[in-house]
Amino acid sequence: MSTLITGIGELTTHDPEHSGGRLRDAAVVMDDGLIAWVGPAANAPAADERYDAEGRAALPGWVDSHTHLVFAGDRTAEFEARMAGEAYAAGGINVTVEATRAATDAQLERGLIRHLEEAYGGGTTTLETKTGYGLTVADERRSAQIAARHVDEVTFLGAHVVPAGADRAAYLDLVTGEMLDAVADTVSAVDVFCETGAFDEAETRRILAAATARGLDTHVHGNQLGHGPGVRLAVEHESLSVDHLGFLTEGDIALLAASDTVATVLPACDLSTRMPLAPARALLDAGAHLAIASNANPGTSYTSSMGFAVATAVLQMRLTVAEAVRAATHGGARALGRHLDRPGKPRVGELTVGARADLQILDAPSVTHLAYRPGMPLTHAVWRAGNRVRG
Amino acid sequence: MSTLITGIGELTTHDPEHSGGRLRDAAVVMDDGLIAWVGPAANAPAADERYDAEGRAALPGWVDSHTHLVFAGDRTAEFEARMAGEAYAAGGINVTVEATRAATDAQLERGLIRHLEEAYGGGTTTLETKTGYGLTVADERRSAQIAARHVDEVTFLGAHVVPAGADRAAYLDLVTGEMLDAVADTVSAVDVFCETGAFDEAETRRILAAATARGLDTHVHGNQLGHGPGVRLAVEHESLSVDHLGFLTEGDIALLAASDTVATVLPACDLSTRMPLAPARALLDAGAHLAIASNANPGTSYTSSMGFAVATAVLQMRLTVAEAVRAATHGGARALGRHLDRPGKPRVGELTVGARADLQILDAPSVTHLAYRPGMPLTHAVWRAGNRVRG
Ligand SMILES: [Zn+2]
Ligand SMILES: [Zn+2]
Repeated sequence: MSTLITGIGELTTHDPEHSGGRLRDAAVVMDDGLIAWVGPAANAPAADERYDAEGRAALPGWVDSHTHLVFAGDRTAEFEARMAGEAYAAGGINVTVEATRAATDAQLERGLIRHLEEAYGGGTTTLETKTGYGLTVADERRSAQIAARHVDEVTFLGAHVVPAGADRAAYLDLVTGEMLDAVADTVSAVDVFCETGAFDEAETRRILAAATARGLDTHVHGNQLGHGPGVRLAVEHESLSVDHLGFLTEGDIALLAASDTVATVLPACDLSTRMPLAPARALLDAGAHLAIASNANPGTSYTSSMGFAVATAVLQMRLTVAEAVRAATHGGARALGRHLDRPGKPRVGELTVGARADLQILDAPSVTHLAYRPGMPLTHAVWRAGNRVRG
Repeated sequence: MSTLITGIGELTTHDPEHSGGRLRDAAVVMDDGLIAWVGPAANAPAADERYDAEGRAALPGWVDSHTHLVFAGDRTAEFEARMAGEAYAAGGINVTVEATRAATDAQLERGLIRHLEEAYGGGTTTLETKTGYGLTVADERRSAQIAARHVDEVTFLGAHVVPAGADRAAYLDLVTGEMLDAVADTVSAVDVFCETGAFDEAETRRILAAATARGLDTHVHGNQLGHGPGVRLAVEHESLSVDHLGFLTEGDIALLAASDTVATVLPACDLSTRMPLAPARALLDAGAHLAIASNANPGTSYTSSMGFAVATAVLQMRLTVAEAVRAATHGGARALGRHLDRPGKPRVGELTVGARADLQILDAPSVTHLAYRPGMPLTHAVWRAGNRVRG
């Protein structure tokens, strides 16, 4: 069944053939889950079904390339203590690990579905999520399998932390060996938290090499808490992305600008941890590929609102609205290797013929309103692979 | 008709008799538009109607004590240029003045109603709005009258700017004379934009004196664009509030701390204009009365989301969640003189017996989630004067 969406006041396509990647008074036809036609509303072909956007703005659905949504437990008190400037004795990630291990499969799956519904309701149409709260072979495996039933891209993050009580050397062997083998068929990439207190340079190298040896893509959590080797290792290793980036040297920025590794910034996480905002403006100015993601997780960024991330990127990281929207759609797709068609996986993050029919309509005449009206509920309607999931 | 709201997991009352102004496992009874009973759910009396909050958090509706919502026209392009770091030739406030004068009464009223529905949908239950885009006797009068039909408190802001083409001295005579007389029966307060480029110290004094001579309360827009006399004049004049406060000296903070004048911060405006965030933490630490408002207007803060303002106040102005929630409810009420009962106007901003039955339920177990989950749509249900306006 085909659907014609017409009456689009402003359409963001990211097609370089459209002026600035945008069309006015536009229409889109979706057919069989893909974009089948894009152009002026006056020239639109007929379709089985018709939806009138009544002058509203339309754009690709958000591509959220960094989340941690297979978890159980609650860390509200830890957040509240952080905001009150108080030390908090509890164990951060390990609190969630303990609760996640204790949860049933059904509990983990229900939690994931509930969080995915929130994300889709806010305009996200492609979402990556990571394991990393299991940290045993069995718990990482079930986390990956539960995720794979529901999200677009699953990443193995056994290298989140060395779990409480584990022997460091033995855990490194596990995460690069048996645990990795147990998830390798289920995930598309491996991520490593390269940071003081998590994994150091030599350990990160070993984890990335083990991933590549199994034909998996890689990501790195890097430069979140201080200057470190994360960016350099990700670029050297040709990782898809390096994420966080609150602490970058000029050299790090130059490395990213000269590479295909996507620089992924996580504005809501920066704010939620009261850390410096990543230098997204400098990264773009240098020529790096930029993505904006939510880092939705119960510890450091308990929001899947890509609208909030985009507004923050404009208001506080000094991107233009067009730059921020591109980073949260096409940029996220590139960070997942999904800006190109893959077998059985049409490309996402753009509205061009052949891309997956992932489209959101805003309750606003222009994408500018995403930053002009921060906090307002602007998601009007959302289609994912041609299916209406909201509105 | 009475309504029992039960199953409230966490109830913020601001009643000093409740620990930290909060109750667990609570219930509220509303009757005839007022709060009739507050206490443990187990002890709740019967009522005509029953609503189960299912463990969610409840709190007073937001009291948004500073908005400019009687306007016409569009300033999206001006915002977009500001975010792109470009100079913008258009005339700011005067662009809105021109469009507002050209609009019909019906157009202005429809716009106001649309914006009010957005605000109520986000949990606001008391809202002040200002004139100030008419700037002729007839246009200020109709703006005040349209506002008075729909909002709780109307403020006369003829002293917004000297309108384009007007003689400064003649306009001062008008705004302290004929124009003020034309609205004095309709509004409850007078506001003045005391800033370089708007009104100076002597002019501000004259405008405040004219208001007081007519028995009206006063507010001051002060210290937004630089250090200036706004705070000092507001405190000297015993104004209800002085709003913006991006540029304060230690002396200004001490003056506010020693006064009953409420310090109103406007976080969304600070971000939308890329100006310094007002020092809300220092104001509270010094002992000032603090309010958080939206400053919803089409130029510098086109959002009525009090949730966004509260999240920003916590994440970036370093308030605790409890402090920010209090400032956005009880603080706003104080900024409007509505923390006390007035003839025909029950007090607002708290959930205590006799207060107006203005209550919001969050889709969250705790108010902490307002900052823990920025950008998420957390407004679950809203009652205003006992009438359900959402959920
Ligand atoms: Zn992460
Ligand atoms: Zn204002």
